[in-house]
Amino acid sequence: MASQSPTHSASASAAAAVKSAFKDQSYLPDEPTGPSIKTEIPGPKSKEAIAELDKVFDTRSLNMMVNYQNSFGNYIADVDGNVLLDVYAQIASIPVGYSNPALLAAATSPEMASAIINRPALGNFPQHDWAHILKSGILRVAPPGCDQVFTAQAGSDANELAYKAAFMWKRRQQRGGPHVEFTPEEINSSMNNQSPGSPNMSILSFKTGFHGRLFASLSTTRSKPIHKLDIPAFDWPQAPFPALKYPLEQHAEENAKEEARCLAEAEELITTYHIPPAAIIIEPIQSEGGDNHASPAFFNGLRQITRKHNVLMIVDEVQTGVGATGKFWAHEHWNLQDPPDMVTFSKKAQTAGYYFGNNDLRPNKPYRQFNTWMGDPARAILFRAIIDEIERLNLVQNTAETGDYLFAGLENLAKKYPAEIQNLRGKGQGTFIAWDSPRRDEVLKKAKGVGINIGGSGERAVRLRPMLIFQKKHADILLGGLEKIFQP
Amino acid sequence: MASQSPTHSASASAAAAVKSAFKDQSYLPDEPTGPSIKTEIPGPKSKEAIAELDKVFDTRSLNMMVNYQNSFGNYIADVDGNVLLDVYAQIASIPVGYSNPALLAAATSPEMASAIINRPALGNFPQHDWAHILKSGILRVAPPGCDQVFTAQAGSDANELAYKAAFMWKRRQQRGGPHVEFTPEEINSSMNNQSPGSPNMSILSFKTGFHGRLFASLSTTRSKPIHKLDIPAFDWPQAPFPALKYPLEQHAEENAKEEARCLAEAEELITTYHIPPAAIIIEPIQSEGGDNHASPAFFNGLRQITRKHNVLMIVDEVQTGVGATGKFWAHEHWNLQDPPDMVTFSKKAQTAGYYFGNNDLRPNKPYRQFNTWMGDPARAILFRAIIDEIERLNLVQNTAETGDYLFAGLENLAKKYPAEIQNLRGKGQGTFIAWDSPRRDEVLKKAKGVGINIGGSGERAVRLRPMLIFQKKHADILLGGLEKIFQP
Repeated sequence: MASQSPTHSASASAAAAVKSAFKDQSYLPDEPTGPSIKTEIPGPKSKEAIAELDKVFDTRSLNMMVNYQNSFGNYIADVDGNVLLDVYAQIASIPVGYSNPALLAAATSPEMASAIINRPALGNFPQHDWAHILKSGILRVAPPGCDQVFTAQAGSDANELAYKAAFMWKRRQQRGGPHVEFTPEEINSSMNNQSPGSPNMSILSFKTGFHGRLFASLSTTRSKPIHKLDIPAFDWPQAPFPALKYPLEQHAEENAKEEARCLAEAEELITTYHIPPAAIIIEPIQSEGGDNHASPAFFNGLRQITRKHNVLMIVDEVQTGVGATGKFWAHEHWNLQDPPDMVTFSKKAQTAGYYFGNNDLRPNKPYRQFNTWMGDPARAILFRAIIDEIERLNLVQNTAETGDYLFAGLENLAKKYPAEIQNLRGKGQGTFIAWDSPRRDEVLKKAKGVGINIGGSGERAVRLRPMLIFQKKHADILLGGLEKIFQP
Repeated sequence: MASQSPTHSASASAAAAVKSAFKDQSYLPDEPTGPSIKTEIPGPKSKEAIAELDKVFDTRSLNMMVNYQNSFGNYIADVDGNVLLDVYAQIASIPVGYSNPALLAAATSPEMASAIINRPALGNFPQHDWAHILKSGILRVAPPGCDQVFTAQAGSDANELAYKAAFMWKRRQQRGGPHVEFTPEEINSSMNNQSPGSPNMSILSFKTGFHGRLFASLSTTRSKPIHKLDIPAFDWPQAPFPALKYPLEQHAEENAKEEARCLAEAEELITTYHIPPAAIIIEPIQSEGGDNHASPAFFNGLRQITRKHNVLMIVDEVQTGVGATGKFWAHEHWNLQDPPDMVTFSKKAQTAGYYFGNNDLRPNKPYRQFNTWMGDPARAILFRAIIDEIERLNLVQNTAETGDYLFAGLENLAKKYPAEIQNLRGKGQGTFIAWDSPRRDEVLKKAKGVGINIGGSGERAVRLRPMLIFQKKHADILLGGLEKIFQP
């Protein structure tokens, strides 16, 4: 796509873009130099396409009608010719830019073509090089302590399959080991969805957490009523997640007390809840719930409590994983001595599943953790190309450095416009940055007018989820665009 | 791949293949003319690859270590050079043959490349031609009465999303319509997984049915204990599925009574179960549960009962859909006057989701039925190519005709070997044929030795799930191979 000059409304951004071109070369040289806004959004062609789509597909959550063939790098293009800097990136799921040439090479390889048209039932008929695809891709970036993987389709089922592994592990322990057979009572009751075969056990999650929208994952999701209303749920426990005060350095003592309170309540629930948990699940940064952070000390405390009471710790890295926080996995920031039992992933991995390191998490018999496709080799091949690109361009270091630069810029903006940027958070967490806005939805809408696509989370957070190829010059465009919106 | 001559053990099959070459041309001209067995299965190279894979991936359910690049049409190739006629087809999920040239063209198109590398969050940022992709593909084959679709990832989540739609529909009705707002009590209780926000409602399923392995889908799955043990489940009702006696024509009266009994019990559960159902879900042919059939009258009766008591009818066509039964959708055999409320699909569609025709099944607000990816345009593009290929080659008619031919051949075999082929079933249901075998697992194992890959279902059924390009000459190879196994 040819670079296009920005319209008047984005000229400050454009100036910043030109200036920063001296600072850093684009990772993708053909990327546009800045946004270009030609119509209101949605424009006339988008409106027409939306009306057409609405006849067969619910469009009420539609944000933009996108032309992906015209989208490139950090820039997303709509059907009216508008080109926006995209710091939402398909809800944090585009890793290395639209139409990335290295991914295009992988997508047009004979290996990919075969994977697309010959999709295997992986548990029964894996392709001969499946071990190689796993080891040279998904497992090359396995978190510390995890050397096995169970592949899945998306974040929700990745989490639910991890829950299944946890339940099977716990019941096996209660039963006395892998060689103790199921009792006739267990076998019969399981077919009637009754205990002991279908045990009264739970997964503990945290208030305002999000772990997906299928029935068990939704039972652990505690983000918003609109996600949960009318859907039957398991009566599973929820612990409080720390509500930290910002800036952190001014509230250290208070925040430490808050984290201690939350840890104590989690421990209380683990030991006394009427449906005992087999595992807890937690996000390193609660993402859909409003970008809520906690300290490494809190997560280390959780690891100790779960170990002490013999429940598993599942870390949900569906949104935080794959480089955006300045580490490949966000939980690497915690420096755990004792790694999590399972780590789930999806989104930027473009495939999904859970990592684990403990052979006990392989069920005692085959076909207990099984389904037809068990993931998708095509998507695993793509993740391998994504990992190659992240390493080739050193993109995890980029998110760390660009994140620091962007955070400093936002701190300055927050000083200038303290009513607009409240509780700025994510310092030292790469580009995984958010703040609270008293007029959030208006800010998000106005951002499109200045050529930037931004998302929200929780009730009033503006969340930044740029791709891993987001550079200082893009940060300048973003900062310039925000200032345009904030200026009285 | 070059055609290879069969080994001694499959020579009868080869003779049959040569003979039938005069009967029908292959749909895929470069297909092998018959199986070719070179080693035991698994052979030495497979064993090596399995040991390697097992370090990182559970291989206890592994059936064959496949080289898909060498697999073509109805034939699957392993890494030891063995080539088998495949009538299992990745658990019924390969529609038009391995390495099908028409699918290869779709998989190597620029449109596909963009779909792979620019995966959208479809609910927020659909691609501009999403309506066109849906209308020229998935919706072109929508079952009667269904003109909308919600796309998903696989069979389990397709069913669970249909359940969510059913619960939202039912609660909206109870609430008094789409414009009645949620009460504060509903909103607050939903966040605690409690009624009324998380309602005490259920989905009714049928004994020996299979609807997936995530938590709600598994709660409706009643196939085998090994699928369900140790996994917490919802206390949902199960009605009996008719246990028909074969041959059908000799047991008409008895079978009609059995179906009436099952209908009465389903109605009793719908009206009195302590957690009332919002919907029932049923397969046209219970596939994982052992290929259990019921008559069109039974399904028409269910439609009447569900309508009468105002619960929805979800037809699970994950395994039966897309042409194998001699109709595009198996439930078309029922000639329902009043179509099902939702029809779910996956497997041969190579993508997943549910069809519906009723605007009331769109939730009253956006973001209630939503997730990041909401399916995969890459797979929707592939399904469109599959549909084109099915129409070009008239493959639904082929499965009807080849199925009749194969069924007649099996009837003859059953007369000759009555101990081997019991309760032969699936007459008039295309190639969706099964029988009971007193030594099922041994038959499946021996089939590999004569160059045929077959799967089982339930406790003792041999189930045939050939692709839609399975022709009379392939049926001859299959029949010849079976006779080899049955011969004393």
